[in-house]
Amino acid sequence: MDNETLAALSATEAARLIREGKLRSEELVQASLERCRAVDPQVQAWAFLDEDYALSQARAADAWKGEGRPIGALHGVPVGIKDIIDTADLPTEHGTVVHKGRTPSRDAAVVSMLRAAGAVIMGKTITTELATYAPGKTRNPHNPEHTPGGSSSGSAAAVAAGMVPLAVGTQTNGSVIRPAAYCGVYGFKPTYGLIPRHGILKQSPALDQVGVFARTIDDVALICEQVVGYHEGDSATRPRARIPFCAVAAEEPPITPMIGFIKGPAWERATDETKAALAELVDLLGDRGEEVELISTSADTLDWHRTIMESEIAANYVYEWEKGRRRLSKSLRGQIERGRKITAFDYQQALVRIPPLVESLAELLYTRYDALLTPAAAGTAPEGLESTGDPAFCTIWTLCGMPALNLPLMRGANGLPLGVQLVGPRDGDARLLRTARWLTAQAAAG
Amino acid sequence: MDNETLAALSATEAARLIREGKLRSEELVQASLERCRAVDPQVQAWAFLDEDYALSQARAADAWKGEGRPIGALHGVPVGIKDIIDTADLPTEHGTVVHKGRTPSRDAAVVSMLRAAGAVIMGKTITTELATYAPGKTRNPHNPEHTPGGSSSGSAAAVAAGMVPLAVGTQTNGSVIRPAAYCGVYGFKPTYGLIPRHGILKQSPALDQVGVFARTIDDVALICEQVVGYHEGDSATRPRARIPFCAVAAEEPPITPMIGFIKGPAWERATDETKAALAELVDLLGDRGEEVELISTSADTLDWHRTIMESEIAANYVYEWEKGRRRLSKSLRGQIERGRKITAFDYQQALVRIPPLVESLAELLYTRYDALLTPAAAGTAPEGLESTGDPAFCTIWTLCGMPALNLPLMRGANGLPLGVQLVGPRDGDARLLRTARWLTAQAAAG
Repeated sequence: MDNETLAALSATEAARLIREGKLRSEELVQASLERCRAVDPQVQAWAFLDEDYALSQARAADAWKGEGRPIGALHGVPVGIKDIIDTADLPTEHGTVVHKGRTPSRDAAVVSMLRAAGAVIMGKTITTELATYAPGKTRNPHNPEHTPGGSSSGSAAAVAAGMVPLAVGTQTNGSVIRPAAYCGVYGFKPTYGLIPRHGILKQSPALDQVGVFARTIDDVALICEQVVGYHEGDSATRPRARIPFCAVAAEEPPITPMIGFIKGPAWERATDETKAALAELVDLLGDRGEEVELISTSADTLDWHRTIMESEIAANYVYEWEKGRRRLSKSLRGQIERGRKITAFDYQQALVRIPPLVESLAELLYTRYDALLTPAAAGTAPEGLESTGDPAFCTIWTLCGMPALNLPLMRGANGLPLGVQLVGPRDGDARLLRTARWLTAQAAAG
Repeated sequence: MDNETLAALSATEAARLIREGKLRSEELVQASLERCRAVDPQVQAWAFLDEDYALSQARAADAWKGEGRPIGALHGVPVGIKDIIDTADLPTEHGTVVHKGRTPSRDAAVVSMLRAAGAVIMGKTITTELATYAPGKTRNPHNPEHTPGGSSSGSAAAVAAGMVPLAVGTQTNGSVIRPAAYCGVYGFKPTYGLIPRHGILKQSPALDQVGVFARTIDDVALICEQVVGYHEGDSATRPRARIPFCAVAAEEPPITPMIGFIKGPAWERATDETKAALAELVDLLGDRGEEVELISTSADTLDWHRTIMESEIAANYVYEWEKGRRRLSKSLRGQIERGRKITAFDYQQALVRIPPLVESLAELLYTRYDALLTPAAAGTAPEGLESTGDPAFCTIWTLCGMPALNLPLMRGANGLPLGVQLVGPRDGDARLLRTARWLTAQAAAG
């Protein structure tokens, strides 16, 4: 296979070829690096990429396999890691000059789990400033004049541009789904607490969630199966049975799914193109799709989310505020300043809204729908690099900690990807991937 | 046995006699009611006590046993329940006129667990106003001119006065340990999250903890073994293996315990009598006791605790504030007013102090001491009924969610009980009871 074909392989295919001895990790990583050399000067997805270091891991993986030792599900497959996730052997600078040169001595839990599965830690991907709004240098791989979205900008762009088949990101508002939608890849943010956050920048612990990027649903399932688990350093995680993501995602749904089309609290901000695309998709579903209205208070969810996020950012970015506030962006300074003024009363009042909302949405999903269909973003990636776009279409699902997946099903008139978002009930993660595969097949047939 | 002897039985003895068919629950409850008639006009421990209802449960327990059915560990034994803990068939008025006539339709988790163990729910015991500072009508059984302590005033007094062998209370600051010390009974507040709080008035979820009162350590172990467990309605609880409280509490310590005497952040408020009593006890321990100093910031724990408690009271007593603030005490209004002004920033900063403090205390306990010995209160129960005394000797242990036990080992010059507090590491609850038994034996021998 030539380098282009290798770099375009899915993680599932690449891992299979390596397992079967038909491909060496070194060849695969070499092809990925070649792809980086070709496209990254324009895309700029990487905060740190050390070719020798990536290749040395690949060679070690090949040697390990050559000795006949047992290998993990991602053996020899390169993965990109958002630069707010600690790596023991690469810098982790959180997208801010305040942390310039920061080199943690330990891997985050999710990185340890990926290494245990045999993955090659390819490099660190660009994040916005401290995973908030001020953009990094990354550009949209489909058009460099457009934003890739954020805050997991580099992870989405690296996967979209074929530089790695898999990447890890995080979402506190819309930081996985939005860049996935803008860049045209699958982006999956599982249920709150499923992937441990130990060793990841704490922004807003009530909202921070780890997610993944891939180019196929199988690949989403494959990486999720490796990184879900309990970690004593993350009180949101729970000991739980292993979730068979790959097996469930590959199944046919036992009965034809029913999809609830939900406009959500940000619908008025959607472009006409987005509104029409969703309508078309619902139309295609026939009697397996119908519109549902969210409860009347759903517009308030944007306020509750902001109250929680800004309160927690203020409390968690104390070091950054005290040591380097002049080097923070104006937008982040504003968030912290507002956050410092919020009362504990309003903060707690916002937090207690979450469980009843989760319950009412769970009821909706368990009684009638397999998943909810809603826009992933207002439209295609906006032009310009000074903003990473509007996360409002993700807010309520992040607030509720529900699993959400961007499906790169469509394109806008400008040729840029137009994603749709599929949302499931908490802990219905694997089934959501199964429903997503079914929906993708419907869309392809339609 | 005459009524006086019956009412003085420990729960362990009473349960054994009932199990062996040597005593009927009806006789036992009748004796308890007789004791109530004799002493409660003065003590006033009960918010609700319905003789017929208590006797009907006792008769049902006797009938059940008469049919040869399996019985629980507390079969036929009367238990008092603090009036902030919901009971399906008795009012639960939270110690405030704002909730006058409130009759929940469901039992709190802890009440369900007691019923499952066969206990007779004797009645509801007096709490201070909404489990905060304004006293209820209860008086100290040892001297009616002195406070019984609070907020679990009636539970402590009812057990001390021999009206029931067991009672349940709660502690958000010093509401189990302090009344137990003032009334001269064992009061045990297990590790945060051990006893489920579902169905109990929410005051300050980060601090609220359920505790028990008894006249022997065996009885503390017996009731704890029935009420520890996971409940999905209390996110602080965890699925866990059953803790063999009775077996562990009954064991001899495998090696002679080492006790750390710790003055704690409130030491300066202790009376000379308390200071001397503690010194005497430490002296008695010889080389099995030594003084340890708390970390220098421990004085701040009183502030952190107040910040958390007042913030959470403000957020949880919204109904009481909005519907009846004029009917709340001045002290509670003050707490709520202050709580509403605290920033989310200060609240979170206080919350994040807890885990490192817990860790440093755990380290101390695991490396050198079986338990920490410290005053339970400043001194004996203060004269007067307008205050329930100072909880400051309990604050740091409540904040850290560590198991704490009042040992009614001594008396003051005024003849009132003078308790000492024994504190263990989180999840070291059963071992703490074992150490307490050893310490009690040392004190008796010395």
